[in-house]
Amino acid sequence: MEEKTIEAGDLILLTSQEGKEFLVTAEERVFGTHMGNLDLGSLLGMPWGSTVTTHKGKAFYLLKPSLHDLTRHIKRQTQIIFPKDLGFILMKLDVGPGKTIVECGTGSGSLTLALAWMVGSTGRVISYEKEEKFALLAQQNLKRVGLDQRVVFKIKNAREGFDEEGVDALFLDLRTPWEYLDQAHSALGGGKTLGILVPTTNQVTKALEKMEEGNFAYPEVCEILLRYYKPNAERLRPQDRMVAHTGFLIFARKVYKNPKSIINERREKP
Amino acid sequence: MEEKTIEAGDLILLTSQEGKEFLVTAEERVFGTHMGNLDLGSLLGMPWGSTVTTHKGKAFYLLKPSLHDLTRHIKRQTQIIFPKDLGFILMKLDVGPGKTIVECGTGSGSLTLALAWMVGSTGRVISYEKEEKFALLAQQNLKRVGLDQRVVFKIKNAREGFDEEGVDALFLDLRTPWEYLDQAHSALGGGKTLGILVPTTNQVTKALEKMEEGNFAYPEVCEILLRYYKPNAERLRPQDRMVAHTGFLIFARKVYKNPKSIINERREKP
Amino acid sequence: MEEKTIEAGDLILLTSQEGKEFLVTAEERVFGTHMGNLDLGSLLGMPWGSTVTTHKGKAFYLLKPSLHDLTRHIKRQTQIIFPKDLGFILMKLDVGPGKTIVECGTGSGSLTLALAWMVGSTGRVISYEKEEKFALLAQQNLKRVGLDQRVVFKIKNAREGFDEEGVDALFLDLRTPWEYLDQAHSALGGGKTLGILVPTTNQVTKALEKMEEGNFAYPEVCEILLRYYKPNAERLRPQDRMVAHTGFLIFARKVYKNPKSIINERREKP
Amino acid sequence: MEEKTIEAGDLILLTSQEGKEFLVTAEERVFGTHMGNLDLGSLLGMPWGSTVTTHKGKAFYLLKPSLHDLTRHIKRQTQIIFPKDLGFILMKLDVGPGKTIVECGTGSGSLTLALAWMVGSTGRVISYEKEEKFALLAQQNLKRVGLDQRVVFKIKNAREGFDEEGVDALFLDLRTPWEYLDQAHSALGGGKTLGILVPTTNQVTKALEKMEEGNFAYPEVCEILLRYYKPNAERLRPQDRMVAHTGFLIFARKVYKNPKSIINERREKP
Repeated sequence: MEEKTIEAGDLILLTSQEGKEFLVTAEERVFGTHMGNLDLGSLLGMPWGSTVTTHKGKAFYLLKPSLHDLTRHIKRQTQIIFPKDLGFILMKLDVGPGKTIVECGTGSGSLTLALAWMVGSTGRVISYEKEEKFALLAQQNLKRVGLDQRVVFKIKNAREGFDEEGVDALFLDLRTPWEYLDQAHSALGGGKTLGILVPTTNQVTKALEKMEEGNFAYPEVCEILLRYYKPNAERLRPQDRMVAHTGFLIFARKVYKNPKSIINERREKP
Repeated sequence: MEEKTIEAGDLILLTSQEGKEFLVTAEERVFGTHMGNLDLGSLLGMPWGSTVTTHKGKAFYLLKPSLHDLTRHIKRQTQIIFPKDLGFILMKLDVGPGKTIVECGTGSGSLTLALAWMVGSTGRVISYEKEEKFALLAQQNLKRVGLDQRVVFKIKNAREGFDEEGVDALFLDLRTPWEYLDQAHSALGGGKTLGILVPTTNQVTKALEKMEEGNFAYPEVCEILLRYYKPNAERLRPQDRMVAHTGFLIFARKVYKNPKSIINERREKP
Repeated sequence: MEEKTIEAGDLILLTSQEGKEFLVTAEERVFGTHMGNLDLGSLLGMPWGSTVTTHKGKAFYLLKPSLHDLTRHIKRQTQIIFPKDLGFILMKLDVGPGKTIVECGTGSGSLTLALAWMVGSTGRVISYEKEEKFALLAQQNLKRVGLDQRVVFKIKNAREGFDEEGVDALFLDLRTPWEYLDQAHSALGGGKTLGILVPTTNQVTKALEKMEEGNFAYPEVCEILLRYYKPNAERLRPQDRMVAHTGFLIFARKVYKNPKSIINERREKP
Repeated sequence: MEEKTIEAGDLILLTSQEGKEFLVTAEERVFGTHMGNLDLGSLLGMPWGSTVTTHKGKAFYLLKPSLHDLTRHIKRQTQIIFPKDLGFILMKLDVGPGKTIVECGTGSGSLTLALAWMVGSTGRVISYEKEEKFALLAQQNLKRVGLDQRVVFKIKNAREGFDEEGVDALFLDLRTPWEYLDQAHSALGGGKTLGILVPTTNQVTKALEKMEEGNFAYPEVCEILLRYYKPNAERLRPQDRMVAHTGFLIFARKVYKNPKSIINERREKP
């Protein structure tokens, strides 16, 4: 269980009654907002979940940001992967403490953060990004939440191949995933899961076409819709509008084109 | 990274070309199916992702089951929580290595399994279930995947209260969650997240009504829809039918009814 | 088939290349917009589907508004019923040429318009509205499209009962439909369909509870989701956001509480 | 308003308490089902909405089938267009009394039936189908509901062109709609709406590509999801499963490739 009170360096999700949120670090400085000023230093030692008020009398709860909050609050220069998709990706990619996961297309680092969180201190995330500015942004985002030590950022295009072998899962978040499938196959451990995110149906078609060559089995294509309700007991109803699309998710298993030979190979071993 | 070959005691997801799945343990015995017999002992030492054939010539891939697979394949006597919901629950409850999570309503143990997986060897899951038969089933399910040591099963109705305090998150999967909110509040750490799953809108209304008393802030109500597509490159289209509903998810943060007093209390400290 | 060219008094849907729409009447006047001025009189005699340009050189197509367009473009002071729901309502209520339909809760008249359109010159719509200002607005909306002669507007609260008997269908679009079920039963013909629209689950529950008294059989509750795609051949994908909720639709059939007596009554007849 | 009692030749929707349905014609014969026999002749003169019992004591309501019921109960040898889509198609195609509508790909005739219903006795439906057996089946289906006189069935492939000009709307329900767009353009009146139904995203892409040539403006692509709820007041919740996909709907307006010339042409007229 975690500490009960706020300590220096902790990230705090300041949340107003109306749900307005600010993600700040507990340190000796004054945080100014149009709702008033708040002396962040005075928050040290306060219990999580308690309330403070700005000099204008506006109340804020002091919440420890959850993984869900952290991925929503990363600084972004790219489209990020949404929490609704992240949770399912973690399940499908078999992410957990101690795992080694490769992602390609770091972007702003929302998946990187979720992966780093879940692999724990004994796991490892290797994240490829060809644009240096995105890699640096993601690194900053991970550093802010104290998870950067679990990630190896590589500023390079993985089209020439990944440096790793036998990894536990690999995720492609880039425009032309079909150009990276052979490389992903080489990097993945036998039977492990490849994940892909693409926004258009045309890209899904191209990725599936490439998979038909036989290196990946059981391709699954899906999309996840998250619908929020107005949390009003007496007038319960879905929100008026919702996010209708972020992307299509594709998952498949690394297998070997000609399974027979593998079996024979194995059987010839003593 | 994990071992490359199958070892005694490993769980194997035998998967046919058509996607027919069997979850078996690698051991010296013959596994019989209508697709033919398979000598499981002969699989020891084979690389993950390779193929074997039954005595009838039917091919199966040898896959290491993912967290997604494991939660789908638990033995069940109750409605289970679906993977589409599990992933999002993990994100919202801030589950990760080292956390202490309480759930109430073990059922067959699908959430228990996902929680135990993600908290790692340094974390802890405490699972309450009033029906002994469900608790025992869940325990078996966890034992099969080697995660039972991370879980404390408690066969008791938590209506009289949870034994824990300051836990990192708490999940209620039972018929009348509104009767357990005060108890959940006592068990949760300050600002931590409560999660609830209920199938009907009437239950959502009752839970929200109880939350209006003020112990929990920022209630969110949502549902997750997972839509699969036929993975056919030339004829890409959604599946004809889908799961339309499993349950409504409710999340809220533990706060204190009268925040002022807490602040004062703190300020009186030196 | 309809006339090929624009005649005085026709409603025209001026639509720009980008889809900006204006619904205007063909008459001798200048129509001014920020995209330039257009001499509406000069459009008389032009073929439908052709293009005109404003004095600023901005091109507009001359389209005859469809029923879908007309319901979207009514002047509104209330929440309107959306086209996605209207089409399904027409099918369920068995609306068609020559039918007599009652609606209660005229609002701005979007359903009134669709009903008037479909019952044709031989049918009849009776529309109840307790707020005079809404009834007048709806009447104007119907008049603009030339369908007001098919509608009888009644400014009264139908809680005291409908004046009609044996009508072909009846629709309730008001806050407390459960208070109008007995009245609706009296107005409907035997076996005819009642339709209801309510935004919240609490209202659905109350309406269903009232229906359990037995006057209405086969209650169906549903919601319709309409998802638009970006019409880009090379980058086909759903729109980023969508309308997530307008209302729940309830349909049921008028039957008789004690069917036995009805049958006996009939059998006693010679 | 329609007749209050059942007359010879009327279609009756016999519906049991559990919702089991049979569509029968009122005539002098005995209708046998596993729930018992029913003398259909004895139903003549009974009021709609009343109840009868089979010789086994099983009760059935006597309901007049709605348009929604009729389209669900047509005899089918092909995939039919679902009511959820039909209603929206009617709105978008501007169908109503007196209109002339062309459809291509009669299939089993579910859209044909809805169109014939809505155009009334003063309208006309022209339905193309290259397979004679489907055209005959659809004709039977329309005859059974007494609407066949409003439909002209044409057993021919419209790829060589439609015989009509200036029609009010045109709908394509066939495998390769992009091969019929020029023909549809010739048949449609200026500014009128073309509708298309296709099941796959690949077909949507091909249709949109063809439309980019400029003959059709404002292409819209959408899909309609209909979600039913269990109509239980105390346990209100969506059904467990639903139809996840029937097809993608495409709508566009007939315009002219080079609008300038049309305008000029018009202006040259006196």
